[in-house]
Amino acid sequence: MNLKTPIKITGIGKYLPKKILSEDLEVNFNIPNGWADKNSGVQQRYWTEAETVGYMGAKAAQQALDYSNTNIKEIDLLISAGASFDHIIPNQASVIKSQIKDADEYNFPALDINTTCLSFLTAFQYAAQVLNEKTKKILIVSSEVSSKHLDENNWETLTLFGDAAVAVIVEFDASNESYLIKSEHRTYSKGVNLTKIEGGGIKKPFKFFPYDKELHSFQMKGKNLLKLANIELPKFMDDFFKNTDYEIQNLDKIIPHQASKLGLLLFKKMFSLNNDIVLETLHKYGNCIAASIPLTFVDAIENQIIKRGDICLLCGTSAGFAIGGLLIKY
Amino acid sequence: MNLKTPIKITGIGKYLPKKILSEDLEVNFNIPNGWADKNSGVQQRYWTEAETVGYMGAKAAQQALDYSNTNIKEIDLLISAGASFDHIIPNQASVIKSQIKDADEYNFPALDINTTCLSFLTAFQYAAQVLNEKTKKILIVSSEVSSKHLDENNWETLTLFGDAAVAVIVEFDASNESYLIKSEHRTYSKGVNLTKIEGGGIKKPFKFFPYDKELHSFQMKGKNLLKLANIELPKFMDDFFKNTDYEIQNLDKIIPHQASKLGLLLFKKMFSLNNDIVLETLHKYGNCIAASIPLTFVDAIENQIIKRGDICLLCGTSAGFAIGGLLIKY
Repeated sequence: MNLKTPIKITGIGKYLPKKILSEDLEVNFNIPNGWADKNSGVQQRYWTEAETVGYMGAKAAQQALDYSNTNIKEIDLLISAGASFDHIIPNQASVIKSQIKDADEYNFPALDINTTCLSFLTAFQYAAQVLNEKTKKILIVSSEVSSKHLDENNWETLTLFGDAAVAVIVEFDASNESYLIKSEHRTYSKGVNLTKIEGGGIKKPFKFFPYDKELHSFQMKGKNLLKLANIELPKFMDDFFKNTDYEIQNLDKIIPHQASKLGLLLFKKMFSLNNDIVLETLHKYGNCIAASIPLTFVDAIENQIIKRGDICLLCGTSAGFAIGGLLIKY
Repeated sequence: MNLKTPIKITGIGKYLPKKILSEDLEVNFNIPNGWADKNSGVQQRYWTEAETVGYMGAKAAQQALDYSNTNIKEIDLLISAGASFDHIIPNQASVIKSQIKDADEYNFPALDINTTCLSFLTAFQYAAQVLNEKTKKILIVSSEVSSKHLDENNWETLTLFGDAAVAVIVEFDASNESYLIKSEHRTYSKGVNLTKIEGGGIKKPFKFFPYDKELHSFQMKGKNLLKLANIELPKFMDDFFKNTDYEIQNLDKIIPHQASKLGLLLFKKMFSLNNDIVLETLHKYGNCIAASIPLTFVDAIENQIIKRGDICLLCGTSAGFAIGGLLIKY
């Protein structure tokens, strides 16, 4: 059963922080030359200095508005899709909205959706479900800053993560040329402790737990994650493509979350996928949390690797532990 | 135009922290006796000690499951609707899910929706839009801990806020006896700086900004907020009830966000509303962020103040600045 919910991406934009780190990251932190590329698969990544989640998100949003020649007043809803935030209160979408030119003149709603690395997929599905003749244009922004939550002694995460913001404008497509075919998200609670920033929330509040590299940095149990993905991912994809007209092997393009070098390798091997079908940007951006999937997608549109009408699978894993898939006709 | 999107609340649950603070709060912080009741309208509030957002949320969820005699395996989606989180990663819904009994055996998705104080309304609207013959039961949990973000020198906020968790199960109602009539949310960016926790996010990362009472506590510009609400709320409600069969004065019950004593007073005066129509729990729970509206709602169901078939308006303001309204037939 293909429901074909009409949704068309009409605007794309991105913002990358000014500061690029390549070999200098290894020099700065006393990591052997070539370690990052060999182990993380990341040759360079962008890290913010003073740039905030709101600033980056608004920059990407403006680019998406310009790309599609959309006036901000046409936007019916802004979704911030990600795990990063400038403030605990207000929500990030409100902060992004306030930094988009002239957006304070219009009172469209601004809401946050967070499924960590899969947030863009969740927001896209949400958008497909609410787009109609009244809610016509939705701005989705994934703006992520991971670099402030890294432990310099943990080379695996230090070399893996990057910062970036991506924005897309999605529209109700009455012609039904572009649509969402299927979306699925599963949360496997047995993996809840495998990916975590332990501190900074209510469990260990700042007030009582001063800054500590380990406590306030991103921690992941890479081997356990791959083990869990190895068990659940084949089952997920098997169910996902049941009752569709598609198989994972005969799609135009697959845009996986750029979780890690080993993760991408295992994913391609698991489903016998060719390199030219599976898009990768890990080497030049690193893992940018929820921004990774849309960044890879937007990059491929800009480089004409994805063309109008292509059948694309956006998929990945996230903290939680979760697996998500989104099958669209672009 | 009344769309009447079928959605029925079948399960309700709540969790209140063990520790209740009434006059002892004033004694502890050297506040004159009676100041809180007189100025904040709060006679008592519940504050967590070791209880986490996840723990409270799971407790409330279990009560809602028991109330409706629902097995956790029947749940198709869990939404955490609020601004509080135990960890920066993973998302709060994953943390709550992992703490609900037997939930790790089922892989339903767990996502966060955050529009601060209006999160429950946003989640409820979303639930109404996605409920269908396939996605039949959704668990919405608003679990909020504000007490860890309070500055003891700021009596206004110190006496105003409380902690609480609320859960509801909403179901697709084929009989269409219970439904959503209308939902609206507007974000007014000119008020983005009126309600804020400045630190703790990417703008002033904990890594470089150690704990500071002012920086890491909730700050609000109460007078400016009321001024903005005074201008925008009448316009919002005027538009909201246009093209519906209802007026704000002829509803069965109104459940406003328990923002503040003065806010509630002005709201009733603004629309000439009677005390018996407008439900209040501020005096016994304080302002519990996103948990306030559903807590007041659930309380009224438990006390048979709200009855099946009642036309109810849930509404309020939030950081951002935003106004939201949700009109339902319970």
